[in-house]
Amino acid sequence: MTITFTLAAEDAGARLGRIETAHGPIDTPAFMPVGTAGTVKAMKPEDVAATGAQIVLGNTYHLMLRPTAERIDRLGGLRKFMRWDGPVLTDSGGFQVMSLSELRKITEAGVRFRSHIDGSYIDLSPERSIEIQHLLDATIAMAFDECTPFPAEHAVADASMQLSMRWAKRSRAAFKPRDGYGLFGIVQGGVYPDLRATSAAMLQEIGFEGYAIGGLAVGEGQAQMFETLETTTPHLPRLQPRYLMGVGKPSDILGAVARGVDMFDCVLPTRSGRTGQAWTWDGPLNLRNAVHVDDTRPLDAQCGCPVCAKYDRAYLRHLTKSEEVLGLMLLTEHNLWHYQDLMRAIRAAIGAGGFLGFAAETTARWADSAKKQS
Amino acid sequence: MTITFTLAAEDAGARLGRIETAHGPIDTPAFMPVGTAGTVKAMKPEDVAATGAQIVLGNTYHLMLRPTAERIDRLGGLRKFMRWDGPVLTDSGGFQVMSLSELRKITEAGVRFRSHIDGSYIDLSPERSIEIQHLLDATIAMAFDECTPFPAEHAVADASMQLSMRWAKRSRAAFKPRDGYGLFGIVQGGVYPDLRATSAAMLQEIGFEGYAIGGLAVGEGQAQMFETLETTTPHLPRLQPRYLMGVGKPSDILGAVARGVDMFDCVLPTRSGRTGQAWTWDGPLNLRNAVHVDDTRPLDAQCGCPVCAKYDRAYLRHLTKSEEVLGLMLLTEHNLWHYQDLMRAIRAAIGAGGFLGFAAETTARWADSAKKQS
Repeated sequence: MTITFTLAAEDAGARLGRIETAHGPIDTPAFMPVGTAGTVKAMKPEDVAATGAQIVLGNTYHLMLRPTAERIDRLGGLRKFMRWDGPVLTDSGGFQVMSLSELRKITEAGVRFRSHIDGSYIDLSPERSIEIQHLLDATIAMAFDECTPFPAEHAVADASMQLSMRWAKRSRAAFKPRDGYGLFGIVQGGVYPDLRATSAAMLQEIGFEGYAIGGLAVGEGQAQMFETLETTTPHLPRLQPRYLMGVGKPSDILGAVARGVDMFDCVLPTRSGRTGQAWTWDGPLNLRNAVHVDDTRPLDAQCGCPVCAKYDRAYLRHLTKSEEVLGLMLLTEHNLWHYQDLMRAIRAAIGAGGFLGFAAETTARWADSAKKQS
Repeated sequence: MTITFTLAAEDAGARLGRIETAHGPIDTPAFMPVGTAGTVKAMKPEDVAATGAQIVLGNTYHLMLRPTAERIDRLGGLRKFMRWDGPVLTDSGGFQVMSLSELRKITEAGVRFRSHIDGSYIDLSPERSIEIQHLLDATIAMAFDECTPFPAEHAVADASMQLSMRWAKRSRAAFKPRDGYGLFGIVQGGVYPDLRATSAAMLQEIGFEGYAIGGLAVGEGQAQMFETLETTTPHLPRLQPRYLMGVGKPSDILGAVARGVDMFDCVLPTRSGRTGQAWTWDGPLNLRNAVHVDDTRPLDAQCGCPVCAKYDRAYLRHLTKSEEVLGLMLLTEHNLWHYQDLMRAIRAAIGAGGFLGFAAETTARWADSAKKQS
C-alpha cells in the first residue's frame, strides 16, 4: 500500500489530517523544512526533529550533481545519508534546473543542462528524475514538470501545462510503487482558472497519491496566489493531500490553509535565519537593527524554543552583526521552531473548530505589529 | 582569596593539577577553546561544555570594539552574555592590537590604534586593558604586554621585554582583587634564555596568580619553542599555574606538557574545523580529500564524541565540499572533543605515573599515520 491520508476535520475550508508513510506520520497542515543538499542548513537533524518537523525536503537537482544519486544510493539513501529518521520528500529537479543551471534546453524528451559544479552536460527527463528520486529513497517523490514562468500568456501557460501533464504520465509510469511511499502530481496552468481545472482533472485521470500546486510564489503576489488557490483546490480530490510548493511567509501559509492546502515547504525560515531575520508571533524582527543592542528580552516571549529559553536579543544581535556562525545557527533554530509552532497552532485551531477566529486574531496581530514598527 | 592551584602529581616534568576559581574548577593540563567574539565559533555553549572544556577564552581586542566592554558589563559580564557558566580567561588585547589593527603606535603609555570596525582611534594601556577585563568579568585576566616580534635581535627583545615588565607592574596595580579571580603575568624575552629568566624573576617580584609564556608559536618552530620552554619553566614557581599562550597542535601540547606547562589555548581545533580538517588519534584528516567519498567509517574509531557516534566520513566530506554550515559545526565539535580527549588522556597518564610511555606511544602513532598518508 502507498502512503495514506486521513482527513480528521474540516473547518471553514481548512483541513486537519494525517499522512502515514513508511517512515512515520505527518500531521497536516504541515511545514517541511528544506534540506537542499542533504542538510537543513545550519541545523543538526535531531534539532530539526525537536522543532516538531516530521518530514524534510531534499532537492534532486543539488543531490544529483553532488554527491550524485548513485552515491547516496550506495550509502543507504538520503535519510540514512543525512541521519534523518523521518520521511523525506524530494522535488523532481525540474524547477531548479530552470532557475539555477546554465544553457538549459527543453524538448519533449526532457531538459539538457550544464552542471553548475563541473560544467558537464546532463539530461533530466521524467524517467531519470523518478529514477534519481528512487535512488535517493524518497518517501514522497514528485512528478517531473516544467514550472510555467510568470507572467505567461494563456497560450504559453497552456502549452507548458500540457507538456507537464505528458511528463506527469511518464513520471507515473516510471515510478516503482513501494509500501508507504508515494508519488505526487503537480497542477500547473499559471494564473488561469480554466488551465488549473484542466490540469487537476488530467492528473486525477493518471492518479497520484497526492497533488501539488506548482508555479505559484513566482512573483504573482499573495492576492493572485490566493485567487489561484481558490480556483484550484476545489478541483482536487478531498481525501488526498494537497501541497503548495515553495510557500511561504506565515501569512501565505495561513491564507493557503484557509483555501484547503495541507503541505508547505519554503527556504524562508532557514534562509532568513542566515540573514539576521527572526520570525515571531509579532511578525519579523531584523537583528541587524540597532534597537536590539541592549534588549535583554528573548526573540519572542511567547515562544517555547530552546533559543528563546536561553538567549536574549542583545546577544543574538551581537552574533548577527559579528557574522558569527552561532548567530545563524540560533536564528535558524528559532525560525524553524516558530514555523512548527504556527503549524501546531493551526492544527489545534482546526481541531477545535476555531480556525477562522485564530486566523483573524493572528492576522490582526501581525498587522498591529507591522504598524508599530513602521 | 584569589584563584588557587593544587599540584596533585608530577611525572617526568609533566604536572597534574587543579585550579579553583569563582566560577568552577579547571583540571590541568587544560586546553581552553577560543571564544574570540563572545562565542566559540559554530558551537553552542552547552556543546562546548559537553566536550569537557572547563574554561573558554575571550579576546579583549574583539570585544572592546564590538559590542564594547561597557555594553557587556551592562549585560552582566561576558559569561552571562555568552551563556557560559564556567570560568573565562581574557587576553589583554595587546597581541591582537599588534596583529589585527592598523596604524598602531606604541609608546610607554600604551598603544594607539585604529578600529578595524569603524576606523576610530582607540588607546589601550595596561590600566585600560585591566579595566576592560574587569568589565568583561574575566575569571582570569592577563597583564597587558607587547608580544615581541620574531625574529628579534637580543637588544630589541630585551627592550620589548622590559617594556612588558613595566606594563606588568602597572597591570598588577590596576587589577582589583576579587575572590576566586586572578591575574596572570606574561614572560617575554623572545628565544633568549637570559631574557626569559630575567622576565620570570621580575614577574615573580611583582607577584601574580599564574604565569603565562608569551611570544612563542610566532614562527620560531616547534624545536625552538621547546628549547625556550626548557629554559623558562624552571624559573617559574612550582605551585602556580603556567600557561603557554596560543599553542597549539596536539604534538606542541604534548611536548609543552612534558616541559611543565599546565594551560593552553589555540584557535586550531575550531579554525581547522571550518576548513575541513579533523584531528584524530591518527593525526589530521582532510575531508576535502576524495579518498573519503564513500568511506562509511567515523572520523576516529577511538573517539567517543557525538559526531563520531552518528556521522560517517562520506557525509562529512559531502558537507565540507558543499560548504554546508553543518559540516563546520560537526568538524568543530569533533575537534574540540578530540582536544579534550587528548587532555583527559594526558591527565590520566600523569596521574598513573605513565606520562613518558603515553607520550612516546602517541608520538609514534602520529608519526606512523603521517608516514602512511605520505
